[in-house]
Parts: sequence; C-alpha cells; structure tokens
Amino acid sequence: MRKGIIYYHVGESLESYFLIKSVTKGVASNGKPFLTIILSDHTGEIEAKLWSCSPEDEATFVSKSIVHIIGDVSEYRGKNQLKIKSIRPTTALDHVKVADFVRSAPLDPEEMLSQINQFIFDISNANIQRITRHLVKKHEKMFLESPAATKNHHEFVSGLAYHVVSMLELAKSIAALYPSLDTDLLYAGVILHDLGKVRELSGPIDTSYTIEGKLLGHISIIVTEIVETANELGIESEEVLLLQHLVLSHHSKGEWGSPKAPLIREAEILHMIDNIDAKMNMMDRALERVQPGEFSERVRALDNRSFYKPSFHEKPLDV
Amino acid sequence: MRKGIIYYHVGESLESYFLIKSVTKGVASNGKPFLTIILSDHTGEIEAKLWSCSPEDEATFVSKSIVHIIGDVSEYRGKNQLKIKSIRPTTALDHVKVADFVRSAPLDPEEMLSQINQFIFDISNANIQRITRHLVKKHEKMFLESPAATKNHHEFVSGLAYHVVSMLELAKSIAALYPSLDTDLLYAGVILHDLGKVRELSGPIDTSYTIEGKLLGHISIIVTEIVETANELGIESEEVLLLQHLVLSHHSKGEWGSPKAPLIREAEILHMIDNIDAKMNMMDRALERVQPGEFSERVRALDNRSFYKPSFHEKPLDV
Amino acid sequence: MRKGIIYYHVGESLESYFLIKSVTKGVASNGKPFLTIILSDHTGEIEAKLWSCSPEDEATFVSKSIVHIIGDVSEYRGKNQLKIKSIRPTTALDHVKVADFVRSAPLDPEEMLSQINQFIFDISNANIQRITRHLVKKHEKMFLESPAATKNHHEFVSGLAYHVVSMLELAKSIAALYPSLDTDLLYAGVILHDLGKVRELSGPIDTSYTIEGKLLGHISIIVTEIVETANELGIESEEVLLLQHLVLSHHSKGEWGSPKAPLIREAEILHMIDNIDAKMNMMDRALERVQPGEFSERVRALDNRSFYKPSFHEKPLDV
Amino acid sequence: MRKGIIYYHVGESLESYFLIKSVTKGVASNGKPFLTIILSDHTGEIEAKLWSCSPEDEATFVSKSIVHIIGDVSEYRGKNQLKIKSIRPTTALDHVKVADFVRSAPLDPEEMLSQINQFIFDISNANIQRITRHLVKKHEKMFLESPAATKNHHEFVSGLAYHVVSMLELAKSIAALYPSLDTDLLYAGVILHDLGKVRELSGPIDTSYTIEGKLLGHISIIVTEIVETANELGIESEEVLLLQHLVLSHHSKGEWGSPKAPLIREAEILHMIDNIDAKMNMMDRALERVQPGEFSERVRALDNRSFYKPSFHEKPLDV
Amino acid sequence: MRKGIIYYHVGESLESYFLIKSVTKGVASNGKPFLTIILSDHTGEIEAKLWSCSPEDEATFVSKSIVHIIGDVSEYRGKNQLKIKSIRPTTALDHVKVADFVRSAPLDPEEMLSQINQFIFDISNANIQRITRHLVKKHEKMFLESPAATKNHHEFVSGLAYHVVSMLELAKSIAALYPSLDTDLLYAGVILHDLGKVRELSGPIDTSYTIEGKLLGHISIIVTEIVETANELGIESEEVLLLQHLVLSHHSKGEWGSPKAPLIREAEILHMIDNIDAKMNMMDRALERVQPGEFSERVRALDNRSFYKPSFHEKPLDV
Amino acid sequence: MRKGIIYYHVGESLESYFLIKSVTKGVASNGKPFLTIILSDHTGEIEAKLWSCSPEDEATFVSKSIVHIIGDVSEYRGKNQLKIKSIRPTTALDHVKVADFVRSAPLDPEEMLSQINQFIFDISNANIQRITRHLVKKHEKMFLESPAATKNHHEFVSGLAYHVVSMLELAKSIAALYPSLDTDLLYAGVILHDLGKVRELSGPIDTSYTIEGKLLGHISIIVTEIVETANELGIESEEVLLLQHLVLSHHSKGEWGSPKAPLIREAEILHMIDNIDAKMNMMDRALERVQPGEFSERVRALDNRSFYKPSFHEKPLDV
Repeated sequence: MRKGIIYYHVGESLESYFLIKSVTKGVASNGKPFLTIILSDHTGEIEAKLWSCSPEDEATFVSKSIVHIIGDVSEYRGKNQLKIKSIRPTTALDHVKVADFVRSAPLDPEEMLSQINQFIFDISNANIQRITRHLVKKHEKMFLESPAATKNHHEFVSGLAYHVVSMLELAKSIAALYPSLDTDLLYAGVILHDLGKVRELSGPIDTSYTIEGKLLGHISIIVTEIVETANELGIESEEVLLLQHLVLSHHSKGEWGSPKAPLIREAEILHMIDNIDAKMNMMDRALERVQPGEFSERVRALDNRSFYKPSFHEKPLDV
Repeated sequence: MRKGIIYYHVGESLESYFLIKSVTKGVASNGKPFLTIILSDHTGEIEAKLWSCSPEDEATFVSKSIVHIIGDVSEYRGKNQLKIKSIRPTTALDHVKVADFVRSAPLDPEEMLSQINQFIFDISNANIQRITRHLVKKHEKMFLESPAATKNHHEFVSGLAYHVVSMLELAKSIAALYPSLDTDLLYAGVILHDLGKVRELSGPIDTSYTIEGKLLGHISIIVTEIVETANELGIESEEVLLLQHLVLSHHSKGEWGSPKAPLIREAEILHMIDNIDAKMNMMDRALERVQPGEFSERVRALDNRSFYKPSFHEKPLDV
Repeated sequence: MRKGIIYYHVGESLESYFLIKSVTKGVASNGKPFLTIILSDHTGEIEAKLWSCSPEDEATFVSKSIVHIIGDVSEYRGKNQLKIKSIRPTTALDHVKVADFVRSAPLDPEEMLSQINQFIFDISNANIQRITRHLVKKHEKMFLESPAATKNHHEFVSGLAYHVVSMLELAKSIAALYPSLDTDLLYAGVILHDLGKVRELSGPIDTSYTIEGKLLGHISIIVTEIVETANELGIESEEVLLLQHLVLSHHSKGEWGSPKAPLIREAEILHMIDNIDAKMNMMDRALERVQPGEFSERVRALDNRSFYKPSFHEKPLDV
Repeated sequence: MRKGIIYYHVGESLESYFLIKSVTKGVASNGKPFLTIILSDHTGEIEAKLWSCSPEDEATFVSKSIVHIIGDVSEYRGKNQLKIKSIRPTTALDHVKVADFVRSAPLDPEEMLSQINQFIFDISNANIQRITRHLVKKHEKMFLESPAATKNHHEFVSGLAYHVVSMLELAKSIAALYPSLDTDLLYAGVILHDLGKVRELSGPIDTSYTIEGKLLGHISIIVTEIVETANELGIESEEVLLLQHLVLSHHSKGEWGSPKAPLIREAEILHMIDNIDAKMNMMDRALERVQPGEFSERVRALDNRSFYKPSFHEKPLDV
Repeated sequence: MRKGIIYYHVGESLESYFLIKSVTKGVASNGKPFLTIILSDHTGEIEAKLWSCSPEDEATFVSKSIVHIIGDVSEYRGKNQLKIKSIRPTTALDHVKVADFVRSAPLDPEEMLSQINQFIFDISNANIQRITRHLVKKHEKMFLESPAATKNHHEFVSGLAYHVVSMLELAKSIAALYPSLDTDLLYAGVILHDLGKVRELSGPIDTSYTIEGKLLGHISIIVTEIVETANELGIESEEVLLLQHLVLSHHSKGEWGSPKAPLIREAEILHMIDNIDAKMNMMDRALERVQPGEFSERVRALDNRSFYKPSFHEKPLDV
Repeated sequence: MRKGIIYYHVGESLESYFLIKSVTKGVASNGKPFLTIILSDHTGEIEAKLWSCSPEDEATFVSKSIVHIIGDVSEYRGKNQLKIKSIRPTTALDHVKVADFVRSAPLDPEEMLSQINQFIFDISNANIQRITRHLVKKHEKMFLESPAATKNHHEFVSGLAYHVVSMLELAKSIAALYPSLDTDLLYAGVILHDLGKVRELSGPIDTSYTIEGKLLGHISIIVTEIVETANELGIESEEVLLLQHLVLSHHSKGEWGSPKAPLIREAEILHMIDNIDAKMNMMDRALERVQPGEFSERVRALDNRSFYKPSFHEKPLDV
C-alpha cells in the first residue's frame, strides 16, 4: 500500500494520487484567482494551493474527483501544506477508485451485517426482533456505509456499523455478568440507537448534517420510525414504548441531547456501552502515533485531555 | 356559590360537600387503623383524619367519591386540617356531581374549541392546516378536558386548552408587530406544542403521569403523531419537518427537555410565548390572595421567588 | 441609493465614498509602514490596506473622515478585502455627510419621540409619569441618537429609541391580554430600562464603553438618576422604589447583570419583552440575506445557533 | 452572668428571664388554642409551648416582651424544648431590659465608632474622606446598632460595626504588605460596603428584610446615597465613581449579587477581606462548643461543611 | 431462614431476634425518658420506641447487642415502626451471632480472595504485581470485611471485595474486546482503587467515616501507601507513578473527587467499570421488590430517578 | 541596566544580547528553511524570524544559548516582531550569563531562605516544625529556584519562594487579628502548600510540566512526601494528618484541584492567603505599564477582566 499522506514530513517530495475532498476559490494579492484544495487519502488529508488557476482548472479539479499530483511537503502556520509542482485529472487508465482514498472500518460490511443479524436472531422477544430486523433491512445499504459521526469518533466509511458491532460484543459480555439485564432490549437498543444517523448525516464522504438532521436529530428520526414500523407490522405492545425509550434516553441527559434520562436498566447500560466504545475509539486514535513516554495531542471531545502512553508500552508503527 | 375550602380560617366550623382526592390508610399509636383523606372542592384542598375507621369506612370513602362532612378547621404543623365530626357518602338525592368540585378554566370548552378552530381556519398553508386540524380532531375530547400540567401552571380542568387559547392571542399580537414571523407556523406550533399531554397525563382529576408520559414525554409523543398524520394525509413536504421541529424545540434547551434548540424564528417565539403565559398564570395565582404592600409565598417553579404586590394595587377579593 | 458594500462580491470593482471607522498602523515585512483601514457605509464595513503610506496619508486618513475610493474587492482568509487603487479625502464639493454612512433605525427620531411621549401621556399615575417624563427630557438628545448596544442587537444610530418603541408596542398588546398588569409601571419600565446607556456608551459612531459604563453599568447609572429625579421633584413614595426595582431586575438574574430578580409582575414581563425584541432583531439580521432552504451564519449572542429559513419563505432582496 | 439557655441539657430545670422573640398561635388536637413561643437570651434561643392559652395570655406574651419562666428542658425531634411550669410578664421591679437578652458585639459601640473615625481621619484624599464621613454621620445610630446580616455571620446587635472594624484592621495589615494598594479607597470601601444594610434590614432584634431591602438590596441603596452625598457636598470627580464601584462589586460576581466584577485592585481586595472576616466569624461560631478531636455541626453558608477541631487544641469553656 | 423485617406489613405481629444498630435517648412530653432503637436484621431495619425506660434498660440495650423482641408492626409518618411488647437481651443459649443480622456479599470472603489472587497472578509486570499483592496482603482482613460505602452501593459486609471481584470480571471481558488495554494496569487499578476505604470507613457495622477518612479521603490514603510500598519493595519505576495515577483519577473529575482526570486509557476505563458496577448494584436494589409495570422509589445517587420494570419482566420474590 | 525588550516601540532599532527561549524550524513558501526564534531578556520576550537559515545556523542558535543581535522592531498581526539584521553566538568575551536574561524575584534567594527559616523556627509544635524543616531542607536548592507556576502568577525564577515569603507575612498579620488561628499549622501549611512544584515543574527556565506533574500534580506529590518524612522521623500523630489535609485542601474545591474542601480554620485561611497573594501579583503585573485613567489588557486567569488605574494614581515608569 502507498505511504499515506499523514506519514510525510516537511521537506519530502511525493508523487501520488489523491481524492479532492473540497475546493475553495480565492483571489490572491496579485489579483489572480487561486484554489485551496483539500486532498485526502486513506490515512488523512493535506491542504494544497493551486496558484493562478485557469477557468479550466476550476472546472476540472472539483470535489470528489481523483487527481495525480507531484509536489513537495512544506509547512505553513504549524501545519503541513503541499506545494503542487504538477497536477492532472485521472482517467480509467489510472486504475484508481474513490473507495481507495477513504478511511473505512477494519471489518468488511458484509461481515458486519452478518454479525448484527446473528444478534437479531438471538433476540427471543418476537416484537422486539421484528421491529429491529425491519428497520435494519429498511436502511441496510446506508447503515453499512454511514460513518457514526462527522468527527470525534467512528467518523469513517462504515463507522456506524462498526460502532454497533463493537457495542454488541460489549453488551453481550456485560449482560453475561449481570443476569438482571434483558438482552433482547439491550441488543435492540444497541442496533437502533444511532440508526437515525442514516438520515441525519449526508453520507460517507465529506460528511455533513442534513436539514432534517439539524432540525430533528437522529434520536427523534428513529423514534418516529420505530412507531411507523410497529404500525406497519401491527404491533401494539409495551415493547414499542421501551424501544423508543431506549433510543430517546441513550445520551443520558438533557444537556447531552436526550429528552428523557434512562429509566430502565438496559437504557442506562446502553448509554455506558456507547460511551466506552466511543472513548476507546478516540483514545486509540489519539495515541496511535504517539511514542512511549509521551503525550498525545489534546482531544477536544474528551474534555480537551492529552493522553499519556506509558514508557513501557510499544512504539507505534511508522508506515 | 359555596364558600371555598381555602377561604376558611382556623377555628371555623363547616358543613359542606367535598370530593375525595386521595385516601391513605395508617395505623395509630393505639394500634387502630385510621384514614388520611385529602378533600377537595373548586378552590383547593384540605387534609382530614378519620380516626378508628371501620372496614366499611375504608370501602366507602374512596378516591373520587363525594362526601358530606361536618367538622372544624384546626391547624397542624402550620397547615390547616379538618377535624371530622360527621362524614357520610352522598347519593343522587344530594344533587352533587364531580364537576362541581374541581377547579377549571374560566372559559367554556366549546367556546375555546371554537376560538382554536378560528385560528386553524386562518392558517393559509394547506399542509400545515390539515395536519393541525387532524390532530386537534383526533384528540378533541381529551384536549378540551386535560390540564396543562400536574402542578405549577394551568393545572386545572381544561387548563391545556385555556393555555393554548391565551398563547394564540399572544401569538397574534406579537406577529402583528414582527412581520417576518410566519403565522401559519406559529399558530400551528402553539396548538400542537403541548398536545402530547393528552397522552402524557392521566386526565383532569388527581392528575399524574402515565407510563408513556414518563418514558417518552409529551414532546416525543406528538412529534411521532405529526409524522403519522402526515403519512395518513399523504403529505410529504418541509412543513412536516418544521412542525416537528417547533414541538421538539419549544422547551428551548436540552436541560429543559428539548433535544433541539429553536432554529427557526417561530420556534424561538413559540418558546417565549409559552413562557409568558405560564409565568403570568403562576404569578397571578401567587398574588391573588396577597394584600397590597405584602409578599406572596415562594413559588418553587419561579426560582423560589416571593412576589410583591405594590401598596397602591387593589386588595384581593375575600370570597 | 448606492449599492452597499456588503452586496459586493469578490472580483467586482467599485468607485464609492466611505466613512473611515478606524485606522491602525503596521510595518510590513519590507520595513515600510502601511495602514489597515476599516471602511463603512450604511450597510456594513470592509477592511482595506493602504501599503507604503506616507506621513501625510497617516495625517489625512483618520477615523470618522469620509474618503473617495476606487478599488477591487478581493478575498483574504475567508473575508472580503478592498484593494485600493486610488484614495482621496473629500471636501464640501463631494456633498457627503457622516449621517449617510451609518446604519440607523428605520424610524425617524422625531417620530419615535412622539410615540414615546404618547405612552408617557398614557401613564395615569402622576409620580410615575413625572419621573419618566423628566428623565426622558433630561437625556432627550442622546436618547434619540444612541444605539442600544455596541454589538449584537440594535447596534445602530437611534437603536435605543427604536428598541424602546418596539417594546412599548409589545407591552401594550401583552397588557391587553393580561389585565393584572399595571401599564403605568410597565411602560415606565420599558422607557427607563436601558436609558443608562446614554452614559454607558460613547455615542452613535464607533461605539465603545465609557469608563463609568465599565465601572457602574447602565443599570446602576439610571437607578441612581431615578432617585435624584424623585428628590428633585419632591416625590417620596413607593413608586420610586418600584421604578428602581424594574430597572435593577430587567436582566432577570445575577449572572446576567441584575442584582435582584424580578419580584413584581411588571418586572418579569419587562424582562421577557426586552428579550423578545432583542431576539427578533438578531434573528431578522441573521436571516436577512439567507436563501430559502439554507442556514444563516452562527449568531454568538443566541447561543451560537445558526438559523434556518424555510424553503417556502421568500428570497432576500439583492440590492 | 446567668447561665445561657444554650448551655442547658435535657432533664435540667431552670428559673430565668427570657425575651420573647416570636409567638405563633395554633389549635391543638383537643381543639384548644396554644402558643408556640421562641424564647431568647444573650446566648441563643429555645422553643416553648404554652398549652390551653387564654385570650389574656395571647395579649400578654407578645414578641419583644420579657417574661419570667420556671420550667424543665426536654427534647422534641432532636432539639431542646422548654416545658413551661410557670410564666409571668415582667415589670419594672424585675430590673431587666431588652439589651440583656440579645447577643451583641464584643466591643462597645462608642469604642467602635472611635476606631472607625480614626480610619476616616487617615484617609488623605479629601473627596473620599468627606463622602465617607458624611454617610457614617448620617446613619450613625443605626450603623452602630445594626447586625451585619439576618443569619450566617455577625447576626447580632452591632454586628455591622464590628464587622467593619475587623475588616479595617485586616485592610491595614494587608495594605502594609502590598504598597500598590490605595488605602484611601480601601478604607472607604470597607466602611461603606455594607452600610446599605441600615436600610435593608429591619433593625437589631428579630431582624428581617425591609421591602426596599428585598426590592433593591443594600448595594443599590448605598450606591445611590454615595451620589446623593457627592451632590450635596458639591463633589464631582472620579472618586465618586470609584466609591460606587467598590460597593457595587464587593460581592465579586453576578451570581453573588454584584452587577459588576471588581475592576480596581482595592475592589478585589475589599471582596477578599469581607470573605475572610465573615468566614472566620462563622468558623469560630461553629467550633466554639466543639470538643478537640471532634467535628462541628454543618454550616450551610460554608458549603455545608462540618469543621474539625484538632485533638491538640483547647477544650471549649462550658459556661 | 427467618422472614426478614422488610417483608412485614403494617398490622402483622412478630417474635424475632434483632441486632441493635443504634440507640438514642429522648425525654417524652410526660417528662419520662424513652429510647429510640434502630433494629436490624439481614434484610434491613425498623425503628422501635421503648417508652419509660429504666436506667438498666439504657445500660442493657446498647448498639451492636442482639435482642429478642415480641411486637406489632405499626406505621408512623409513612414508615413502618415496631411497637415493642416485650424485649430482652440474649445470651449464649439463644445461639445467635452478629453475623446473622447483617447484610453481606453473596460470595464467601475466602472465595473472593481466591479470585482476586488469581487476577493478581495474571499480572505479568512484576513491579505492578508485587505492589498490588503487597497492599492486598497488608489490608487483607479489613479488605474482605469492609463495605464499599456507607450508603448508595455495596454498603454491606464484604461489599468492597465483592465490588472489586465484579469489576475484575468486567475488566477482563472489556479488555478482551479492546486489545490496546494493558490488563496489568487495569487489574491493579481495579484492585487498588477503593482499597483506601479500609482506613476511610469505620468497619462493616454501622459504618461511618473516620477522621482521616474525612480529612484525606480514600484516594489520598492509598496513593501514599502505593509509594510507601514501592519504597519498601525497592521499586523505582514508572509503574509506581501509573498506579498512583489510576487511583487518583478514578472518580474522573475534580468535582467528583479526583484531583486529576484520567490520562491513560486504563484510567478512563477503570472509571467507567466502577460506574457500571455501582449503577447495576443500585438499580438492581431499587427494582428488586418492584412489580412488573411499576416504578421503583427514587434513587438519590442516580440523579433521583425512579426506575421502571417492564410489564413483561418477572415478579419479585416475596420471601 | 539595558533597556528591556518590552520597552521598545515599532520602528526602533536595537543592538543587544538575548537568551534564546525556543526555536522552531519552518519551510518558507520559496522552499527554503527558516527559524522562528523566541528571544528573551529580563523583561519579557519577542519573536524573530531568521530566513534562509543554514544547517550551521540550526546547530548554533539553539534553546538556552545567548546571542548578540542587531535588528529593527516591526509589527506582525498586532504583536511586535524583531527583524534580524545580524545575529551571532556569544563567547566568554561577551561577559554575559543566563541569569541576566531571566525575570526573577525581587528578593535574594538566601534572604528568602533566611526569612522562611525564621518562620519555621517560630513553629512551637515540634512535630510540625520537624516535618516542615526536613522537607524544606530536602528540596532547598529547587525550592529557591523554582517559579510558582508556568504562567499567570509568580512565573519567574525563585517565584515559588517569593510567593511563600509574601504569604507568610500575610499569615502573620491575619493570625494576629484572629487569635483562634493556630500559627504552627498555618505557617507550615504556607511553606508546604506548593512545595510539590519542585517536582511538578521542569525548573526555572522555559518551564513546563513534568510527566509526574501531569499525572499526579503538586498536591499529591507533597502529600506523599509528608508521610514519607513522618515515617523517616518516626512521627506518628495527628499533626501528620493535618499537614496532609492543609496541602490537599488548599485549592478549596474539587473543580479547582482539591479532593477535599478545607475542614480546619487554618486550611480555609491558607486558601484565602494563597488567593490574595496570587491576585495581587497578577493585578500588579497587569497594571504596571498602564497609564492613569486607562484599562489594562484582559487577564485570563482573573476571569478575563481588564483592570482600571484610577486617574489620580501615579504614572508607570518608562524604563
């Protein structure tokens, strides 16, 4: 695999393919237009400037296209920047595809779907099982592609499904230790809790919030779909209410976005499992390139903490 | 009209009818059972003790029955208490009915419905009008009976409809001053914002929260019904989204129960109108029996403040 | 009217008059001095750089002077910037005056004064009326010119009077719905609540806080003036106390600047009316150039929210 | 001196004089009226019940009268209570006076006044000195009598003056260590900071808040008086502004009642000196009857903490 | 096993043994002394009054003695109370021992110690293992007896060890899912995190805080012991620092008692495991006697929430 | 003494010696490397750019070396910047030493040590005195050199000792006014409270936090050393507990870093003295170059306040 862009140091030259994540046009102090291009590969991104660009350049180098670039890595205001020596659009002959340039979950979507379906199969309460299965089916394609967030944690292709699979494993081992937990409710809660993100987020690449995402949020979206599904399946029972409650309360507090605090055991545990998986993902990301005996960068979503890697832990791989 | 129970002073005797609001059984220090009965009329309530009660007493004097009582008003731990000299159940011959013993809105339900329907008629956007009309129709009976809360403000029969009617008037005069406000959205928001309370609360007498009220809350309940209604009416347009947003955000902040803050002008104003009407209701209640130049009791829902009646304002009526 | 500066796009050229709002001197990397000039007109402002400026330039292009400029609109760090091709001071022959370059209230000051006086006339309590009238008279000139703030809302010439006039209309319609409100107190509260800003703020152009503004604040300033006025008019009655309380408590909470929470009905409503008018002003500003179906910029003073314009609302005018 | 009421234990009998602090009438379960009387002496207070009281009793045993009592100390719900065996009003022949029954400052009022006047004399800035002297003169009688609060700290006769004297000593020694402090401002700030309490509080016995105390608070009251005094003395200078600022900001934060945070050094130090003296007073009170090696009762005004007396500190006196 | 005291209803009679938890002496309104005795058994406690007690009674019925009682269950102010008909101290002939009257962990102490030792054995880092083993050995007796708290969760004999054993199981299954976690640090953190409670709390019966518990807290106590142990074992390495950090940060935030937030992965997870186990314990306790379809009492330590038992879950056992 | 760097204005030239505080390498837009050098002297620091630097430059101009520079003061983004015309390393012939380039306490270290020792001598409790003396001895060298913080207050060479000396003087004068304070505990608390900073901070120049500083903090570090010292000296008494408590609680609240709130009088006063000295130091720094009648820059550590220098106070010296 090619050396990822985040592994280049200031002063190095490179010749490589990149996916254009976004492009902004500016006018330089000499009055000429230029493009600020965010280039990305499977490891991360870098900013590049294309000075004195022509109208053709503007039309060619657009978001989500793949380009071939020769350039040098320099530094501007403390961040790496790519000085472009040559840039060209790619064709079929380059044999490159978008999927090669995005970060994605370490598991295959089909594999994750199969694991999730196994958990659904293990739900013994028929009402809970049918509603959960129906909603997963309904959103299957997007569910397998969507990130779990625009930033912070699991913000990559298939991040949502990967987050759910990890949480299901956690749920299973915790429930094994506390027999009072109802695994039917807990598994369904895990599978449905963030499913509204398939409508809240714009999709796997250059993810942003949709209008309904901003005005309603993923919690309200899926709460309503649970009721619609129950209506459709002719289910009228307390399970419908409890599934709604599990989703509604999974952020735990009003100030974190949940209009109701968890009022059943499984809702409280769902919140904590969600937290553990998100935090492990963020801490692992923060520490992955840190040397033993050193501190990571600050992580805003974790109270701006900077994490320490013990001096007797292993060194990171330098790809 | 009979002199209401809240107007009696310690030392007075009375002979009157009351609605039993609740009954609790206890065992006295002499080992005999007794009943603690909360009696209510259209002005308020008083606690009474029925000492050495028989099994028949227990079976007769139950919640929501009407009784005839002769007794004296005494005082216990700073609160009035009724010493029962004689108590008997009522029959058809007493010509009393539950409705005479509950506090209710100063307007007639039919009158309020007619006013609300006029506002619905004034909504020019057909999608908004149809959804609003449909939901009011669907819950009409309960909507006209329900209180707006279990305590704090508009906690009386038809309190919900009365709160909505007052807010509609406020909405109308404010919108007249700010032409950028869309009255279609604003009126619909006012009418729907608390409609979920018909399922969140148990009904007009001795009101408590239902199970779905506790697990979902009135906001989620009606948000889902808006979508169900739109589906039923075949409406698929941004108005559905905005009506949901108006309801979702009307408590303004996460810690006050809204998972989304208001993001359209009408949602922000809806929240403020709701606040003004609730606060005027609470302040008027607190001050209604206060003498000029004195302070009211503390009002917990208003940051525990005690309000002042200017010395040049009018004296309260002593019914 | 000339096309306002905020309506120019990157790449356009312009020839126009501007008011200099502020000037800062810098030294460029080539060692030569340059001026950073903030130019303003009645719609907003733009930054311009005058490179290699002479001592005469420094003496000529000073704050609050009007200049004639030919230049191009470019972009720097995401904000528009004006590249100056030619700049000269103006003379009487240019027929321009400062008043043409500042944003001001949509109503004429005399018209606003007349409306406010009508409300004062409607105050039936003589003590309240005399104190209010006296203070408005005393500060009349500044009251009609002053903005209501240095930023956020009503931050334009005559913004204070405009804010008061809008609030009086609101007060009138709300009081019509809640008869327990004392309009004498409420109108006087509205008129006096921010009057201390005539001493807290430096005046209508390039507004900043005065020393006494910073050390005392507009609330304390006017509370003291109410007492001085009462002394002067020989008024000794509870009304003096209540007018002070209305002003003191109009920010509602200690953390928002009010040393006392509202303890009379009119004070609570005064706070809410103030809020409604300020928020409508800010939301209207934020949305005025937003296209239907899009979100505004974030508004810091409104909890950093970004507001949505429904897709079926009207497009903004593009002057 | 007589043994104070707080030093009696359950089971002891007593014959003594007390000041009636307050009286409440109740009706017992046998239907007869009774009085709940709070009796006080120079050390504290105790509750007593006068059962089956006559109308004469009600007329005789009123607040602020002195009575002679024979009784036994018993216990009710964890607090001492006095069982009255005999009670009679006192006459001139008893040779008792109210002043003997109230807790007061350990220094003589005249002595405190003389110390305060010495500090005023040491203020070299004539404007500051004249305003301070004038206000102390104006309120001299009340200033020397008033408590500093209704509860928490210095809540005794002359508590206000005593608090000021202690703070002046603190101010003097701190200013000696930090030469950048202006002792003129600091001394005047100390003397004036709580002077508004002479109007905020009802006086030295059974202290409560006045109406203007509740609606304005002691800070606003004295800020206005500073300006009135300056007007009267014909002083127009920055000192007037700074004295107002010192008083306004001495609670430090909005949520603690100060509309402005301290913005000059002396204001910041004034706040801290106020805090030290109040806290020392509260901690000394809490610990005065605690045995070494034990914890005090919780002190609500000190974050509900319970303080420890080291085991090697001295035992309290048992009067 | 005898029917536990919490399973008795008002009106039932009983003859049983109880452990006296605490005794308080009072004086009744008739002037005679009485004892308020808190009686406890393995399920909970009940208040009883011993009226007109003799000095011998006072000397006999003391805290931590076992008594034989015949009485009736009555009710006072909403709580059960035991009316004593006969009470006598017990002797060897009664064959009762304190251990039979206290609630304790469902596992045997020796069994728990053996499980904990197995985890210590699994720690591969010699420094971490030795320090952990040494501290467990040092406090072994108290560690196996101590509750984990005075109230809220695991507040029973051996509660501390039981909490640790549950957390170790949780740690093991979570670490199996997240390979970046260092189980050496995590297991040691779990074992040591609350070990300071053996000095912070007074012991297993009628648990209170010790003086050093109040002045230092269990966190500081054990942090210091970790260093003392390392000194004693001659260990000077980063492990000592990390073990201290794990303990210091396990409450996660300053306001929850941790002077440092977790800065290594294992510290963050330790905090979350602690939370899960404490919350499961509290929720299980709250719901154990609740009927399906009903809500529990409010749980103060869980944000005062009242938890719901789904209507399709099992009924509680009624012992 | 040379004119300090903070006294230079834009446009002035200089020839002077500086200590290099830090160096960062960058690559300019022309592809050539450059150095960003932070130069410091005894008054403050300035940024300089060394363009097109050679590998020798990189090796020569390193952190903590002293250089001789000729250059001009220009301005970049609102801050002064030094344009280097000539730069060379220094040799013994330049007769310059690091100590000349750092800000340090106004008192001589030996003088401060002697004052601190006098206070230790005044501690009459032998246990307290011995522990305190032992710890001061143990860390004497670092204690006399260390700053009290990395920024905010006393962030200069010997700042820690200077802070302690000032606090001791404060403690002495406050204890003279409140005889209930135990000066033994108070003096020892002052001397030990920040002593952990000798291990928490990296030393006097370019101060940063050590790893143990970040993971444990100065409070935990010295609490443990107090116990180690007591063990070593064979002291086992309550004094050891109280010294730990004084240090533990000196930040007063959990959210400010203290796991225990102050529970003895001396701990509460220690916190307040610490606050006074830190705030006086920060306010004096903020105001030292402010003209009378003007406001200082905002001080982040003092709630972002900007302080006012009264117009009748003295002008600052312009060195």
